[in-house]
Amino acid sequence: MKLVFNFILLTLVLLWSNKSQAQNTYYQHVDPFIGSQGEGNVFVGASTPFGMVKAGPDVNQAANSGYDANLALELHGFSQIHVSGTGGGPKYGNILLMPYSGDFAQIQQRSTRNNEQARAGYYSAQLDKWQITAELTTTNKAAFHQYTFKDNHQNAIKIDGGFFLGEKKTPDAREAQQFVGSEVDVISTSAIKGYSRIRGGWNNGDAYTVYYYAMFDQPCQKINTFKGNTIYVDQTSQYDSAEKTGAICLLSNHHHKQVKVKIGLSFISTAKAKHNLLNEIPHWNFEDVVQQSQQQWDKLLSRITIDNDTADSHKKMFYTALYHTLLMPVDRNGENPKWNAQPYYDDFYAIWDTFRTSSPLLTLISPQRQAQIINAMLNIYQYEGYLPDARSGNSNGRTQGGSNAAIVIADAYVKEVSGINYRMALKAMIKDATIPPGGNGEKEGRGGLADYNRLGYVSNNFVRAGNRTLEYAYNDFALATVAKGIGRNGEYHRYLAQADNWQNLWRNIENNGATGFIMPKDDQGRWVNSISCNSTEGRFERITYTPLAQDWPNCVCWWCGFFYEASSWEYSFYVPHDIAAVIEKSGGANAFEQRLNTLFERDFYNVANEPSFLTPTLYHWINKPALSSQRIHHIIDQNYNSSRHGIPGNDDSGAMSSWLAFNMIGLFPNAGQPYYLINAPYVSSTTIKLANNKIFVIKAKGLSHRNVYIKSAKLNGKPYNRAWLQHSDIINGGELILNLDDKPSKWGTKTPPPSKSIPGR
Amino acid sequence: MKLVFNFILLTLVLLWSNKSQAQNTYYQHVDPFIGSQGEGNVFVGASTPFGMVKAGPDVNQAANSGYDANLALELHGFSQIHVSGTGGGPKYGNILLMPYSGDFAQIQQRSTRNNEQARAGYYSAQLDKWQITAELTTTNKAAFHQYTFKDNHQNAIKIDGGFFLGEKKTPDAREAQQFVGSEVDVISTSAIKGYSRIRGGWNNGDAYTVYYYAMFDQPCQKINTFKGNTIYVDQTSQYDSAEKTGAICLLSNHHHKQVKVKIGLSFISTAKAKHNLLNEIPHWNFEDVVQQSQQQWDKLLSRITIDNDTADSHKKMFYTALYHTLLMPVDRNGENPKWNAQPYYDDFYAIWDTFRTSSPLLTLISPQRQAQIINAMLNIYQYEGYLPDARSGNSNGRTQGGSNAAIVIADAYVKEVSGINYRMALKAMIKDATIPPGGNGEKEGRGGLADYNRLGYVSNNFVRAGNRTLEYAYNDFALATVAKGIGRNGEYHRYLAQADNWQNLWRNIENNGATGFIMPKDDQGRWVNSISCNSTEGRFERITYTPLAQDWPNCVCWWCGFFYEASSWEYSFYVPHDIAAVIEKSGGANAFEQRLNTLFERDFYNVANEPSFLTPTLYHWINKPALSSQRIHHIIDQNYNSSRHGIPGNDDSGAMSSWLAFNMIGLFPNAGQPYYLINAPYVSSTTIKLANNKIFVIKAKGLSHRNVYIKSAKLNGKPYNRAWLQHSDIINGGELILNLDDKPSKWGTKTPPPSKSIPGR
Repeated sequence: MKLVFNFILLTLVLLWSNKSQAQNTYYQHVDPFIGSQGEGNVFVGASTPFGMVKAGPDVNQAANSGYDANLALELHGFSQIHVSGTGGGPKYGNILLMPYSGDFAQIQQRSTRNNEQARAGYYSAQLDKWQITAELTTTNKAAFHQYTFKDNHQNAIKIDGGFFLGEKKTPDAREAQQFVGSEVDVISTSAIKGYSRIRGGWNNGDAYTVYYYAMFDQPCQKINTFKGNTIYVDQTSQYDSAEKTGAICLLSNHHHKQVKVKIGLSFISTAKAKHNLLNEIPHWNFEDVVQQSQQQWDKLLSRITIDNDTADSHKKMFYTALYHTLLMPVDRNGENPKWNAQPYYDDFYAIWDTFRTSSPLLTLISPQRQAQIINAMLNIYQYEGYLPDARSGNSNGRTQGGSNAAIVIADAYVKEVSGINYRMALKAMIKDATIPPGGNGEKEGRGGLADYNRLGYVSNNFVRAGNRTLEYAYNDFALATVAKGIGRNGEYHRYLAQADNWQNLWRNIENNGATGFIMPKDDQGRWVNSISCNSTEGRFERITYTPLAQDWPNCVCWWCGFFYEASSWEYSFYVPHDIAAVIEKSGGANAFEQRLNTLFERDFYNVANEPSFLTPTLYHWINKPALSSQRIHHIIDQNYNSSRHGIPGNDDSGAMSSWLAFNMIGLFPNAGQPYYLINAPYVSSTTIKLANNKIFVIKAKGLSHRNVYIKSAKLNGKPYNRAWLQHSDIINGGELILNLDDKPSKWGTKTPPPSKSIPGR
Repeated sequence: MKLVFNFILLTLVLLWSNKSQAQNTYYQHVDPFIGSQGEGNVFVGASTPFGMVKAGPDVNQAANSGYDANLALELHGFSQIHVSGTGGGPKYGNILLMPYSGDFAQIQQRSTRNNEQARAGYYSAQLDKWQITAELTTTNKAAFHQYTFKDNHQNAIKIDGGFFLGEKKTPDAREAQQFVGSEVDVISTSAIKGYSRIRGGWNNGDAYTVYYYAMFDQPCQKINTFKGNTIYVDQTSQYDSAEKTGAICLLSNHHHKQVKVKIGLSFISTAKAKHNLLNEIPHWNFEDVVQQSQQQWDKLLSRITIDNDTADSHKKMFYTALYHTLLMPVDRNGENPKWNAQPYYDDFYAIWDTFRTSSPLLTLISPQRQAQIINAMLNIYQYEGYLPDARSGNSNGRTQGGSNAAIVIADAYVKEVSGINYRMALKAMIKDATIPPGGNGEKEGRGGLADYNRLGYVSNNFVRAGNRTLEYAYNDFALATVAKGIGRNGEYHRYLAQADNWQNLWRNIENNGATGFIMPKDDQGRWVNSISCNSTEGRFERITYTPLAQDWPNCVCWWCGFFYEASSWEYSFYVPHDIAAVIEKSGGANAFEQRLNTLFERDFYNVANEPSFLTPTLYHWINKPALSSQRIHHIIDQNYNSSRHGIPGNDDSGAMSSWLAFNMIGLFPNAGQPYYLINAPYVSSTTIKLANNKIFVIKAKGLSHRNVYIKSAKLNGKPYNRAWLQHSDIINGGELILNLDDKPSKWGTKTPPPSKSIPGR
């Protein structure tokens, strides 16, 4: 039997190799524009996987990625550092390059653009005003700009150290990026270095400094510098006097119409930026860098191969979803100005968004990379005191719903990701669980923890008390998971007990036919029925708090409601470790089914946000996986597509995208636990190439738009009757065959997925 | 009458002017070596008042100021940034210069030194090994080194960006400074720039970067660079790869035996360091810079003139005490890499040390400067969230006994220091008083505040619970003071009530004849009789907690005792706002007198630390000011002198020195309240030149070593019978005549100083 199975595996490996050769241009299925219109806020410029440098167009200074689809808006230029898919106040947009022609008297130079093209690792556009074609590509720490001018008279390229996204008139506005300083130094007729120092932004972070070293492939006729609004024609450097500075390379009768600029970036120094540039782009071949980037993308994207016959739109959706997931966090090894320990990653933006599906997806594709990222998180804990819940520009913050790094760690642990010091990790998790961050609750740690640990719930003395109680309970389950695994029984029992804390806010009230909701309670243990809203017309308003109430942002600030970015209707399902208990408390399976139906049918469900990521699959726990499948297909068909509007809500560093990617291949993770829910996929065949060189294949037989139900399944040739799969089944390699049908079946209706079950080790 | 008095004032102004001319070399009375032996830890190098740059000898890498009096130790060189008088793990010691001769193969070059000389603004020593004379002087942001070699063959000057104080073998040891990165770039044969990036140190602060730009007055024959332990003869720069770097200027057959090096420093960039250098030292005249520094010192020191006939040793003690007080915090306007708001001061090290006498002394000498410093503190609050209790290297931390910035603000407020936004200041104080710093309690804010605000005291759940309760109570009095003044009655009443919180830990127990002590209590309100000590021999030890018990550092860590750096015997007197209540609770005046006597006679008093700064004057409150006078004279005579051992304990940025300076002129402040206790001075005449151009003169008639008691007094010609003086009496200008005697008198025995009294405005 074993021999036979090995033979099957070997065949699969060979099959995969062939496919791989046939499809070694996965990057071609990536369309960076998906999600660039609407609220997706994705980055459309050039980046390598997890690239520190993300060079792209800055169309709108108030836009999170710098990009705005509106072609009527005038582009500011192309800056080197961006994030993708974020919301709130923008971050980065540093070191802006802008080519222009003709008028050299103005520092400010803008133009509309057309003919935009974007691929993985490549972006280009034409600047209407001057008919300049701009092309961008990047390595991890350097960008390569190629500008083709209309002719070789009177052209210029500006390097602007004073540009950044999210500047506001109010100097210290919250979430606004604020200028601290900048410097420029002309090295020769073809080299300029300098920096830009910025603070604030979405996470209200400390100042960060982006250093650059730029080289031109041909000498500038002259390089002027500028400071504030003044151009200094005779000064080759501007020191940092807390003003905006930059330089302008004047090109007149230059040799080629095409001018290449390569620019190294660093968070350490201009010399490090130069080193990064010469180390990563030692030549002037633009195409080579593009290809190198594409190869890097292909290496990662090829870890999951979908059937070649998949509809182009689905191929695009799937590989772009992978692409978006792999843009962040960013690899900043050797680029941390605060301490030296490696590895270092930044732009966890935010873990609350990405722990649910992005982390599990990366664990599946590249557990080594996931280990590096977690080790970077542990370094942050060791050197700065707390794990990040979010982090950007070398500063932790802002915590979102629940400070969920614990789940990222537990997810890696249960999936046996190696190369992580899990004892250290448990220490970091326990820090989060025991030491309140006090006045720094917005930055890191568990806000409201003093209440949580004293009362068993976060009282209405603290903002976001509802989601914090729920999420801390699940975080505690994650702690118990790791504690059990490494034999720390005291902590295991303590945190397993605390994992029930969500029940302390479960109130037996009825709303829209459902019973039992997470509701606010004061620190004396009394339920809170009404909440105070901003005073209007000279009196304080109190409004009844209901499971559908959204106190934010009208009654209280965005971050100050009882729930963060969702209602009790959505959040009362958020007990990922004990759905069985939620079902029981909701009145049993039938009541729970009705409750789920109500959520979706009455639009209480918000597709555009993370709290309900797991919810469409909860039918699995009442042994009706067919209904999960149906919901997921409905959600995807209604909300995701391959157009520029193809992502509902902010992509959140790829969180929405990774949700889609998993569901398209018929698997959905419950992060922090070692299994996947099985649903009807969107592709007839998926091959996952695992880190151990084994492969796992999912085949969907009878795939069609109507066939969204699974009739039967086989795992490695044997009937498989559970609607969920262990992670170990995947990493051991093998084949899952799903037979699809157009109506619900009895398949998977016997054994619901686990509830409150921690695997032994 | 008014006319007559104006005439007196005029006469005094004229007298003062004459004196001023006669004594316009106050700096000559400064001996930077006072306190350089023993535990004083003072900085002996060159600095301007509040100078950012403090260039001095680094003899011992484990020494706080870099200095060690031991002449047998080999000097490492002369680095540019230091602190003075601090304890705990060292900070700074950045950018080391070292001249040497002969052996160029070694990077490490050390020599013993002799013939050390130090004056305000000047330091010199001879390096034995090579017979090189090194002389140093500084401006605020630049240092000037003048090296005279034995001859002009085979010499060298090293600039070491990898040197710093307090490095430990354990990479991340607490309070150790840790290397992050460094860079060097040779600009020409006579200019070198670079930086050193260091984290940690005493306050466990974030990384700070010291940039430099150094110029030689004659070309180096060659400049080599080094990285790690390797000299690179053909490389003119070393980029930051997280290794130690530097450069060596080789001087062979150079023009002059004397080589001058001037070096600009900056916390912003090398270009800013260059700007600072050229802006502050645009020439090569070493003597000019020395004189400029001396003038700056004289300008401040001359604000208090003591009688010219004063014994030299007392003159030295007094002006050196002023000098030590005016070294820190340091003026870093325009040098904050985190945000731009001005003014900016750093190296509050620590306010717990300096609020008692250093801040009041500066308020007397230069209220404008004190306003700048407080505005810098408010900027720190605005940009980083909390006022500093201590701060160094652009990072708040570590909080000491009580987070006492509130008292600095109240002290300025009651003394009507203008140019401060006191409404903003109250906001900052209230932040301290209401928002617990959580896991960052070591960095800023009030640790244990959750207890304090809930229970009215800090329970033994928190470290340093005793002093925190006492000090927060006095901080609250400071809040009430400012709140009352600006008409915030709600806060006034709330914090005035909280100012009694010290009583919640007052336990009626007897010890050494005294009754009532601040003792530990648990969070259930039960007194705690014994404390757990480190386990020894396999069992947990519990020891009885008594008013003399010192649980730290043997039972618990240095910062973890019930009291910080003192016993209950000392701390139970620490109620600066309500001594009357302490007297009453101690059993009345007689019992209190006995209690004070016991403290001093049985050596329960620690002269070398701040908690008991006010205690010797407490006899004033039982109407026996003569006993205060007697104690103070005894303490000074026994513990202070003009020798290198002349300061008891760490000088703490001048805290011990400012205590001495006040007591030498017969005034002692109760910081945060608008009055001074009067005692017999050490000088027969003191003239204070006030910011409003008025002068206040204190004359001590009958001054002698035996006459330590005041027999009678006159203020502006009228009998003055209180042993304390309002600040307004001083700033209105005038004359206080004290008649001294060798035995206690009835003077000042009728009206004790205020208790729980907040002045209206």
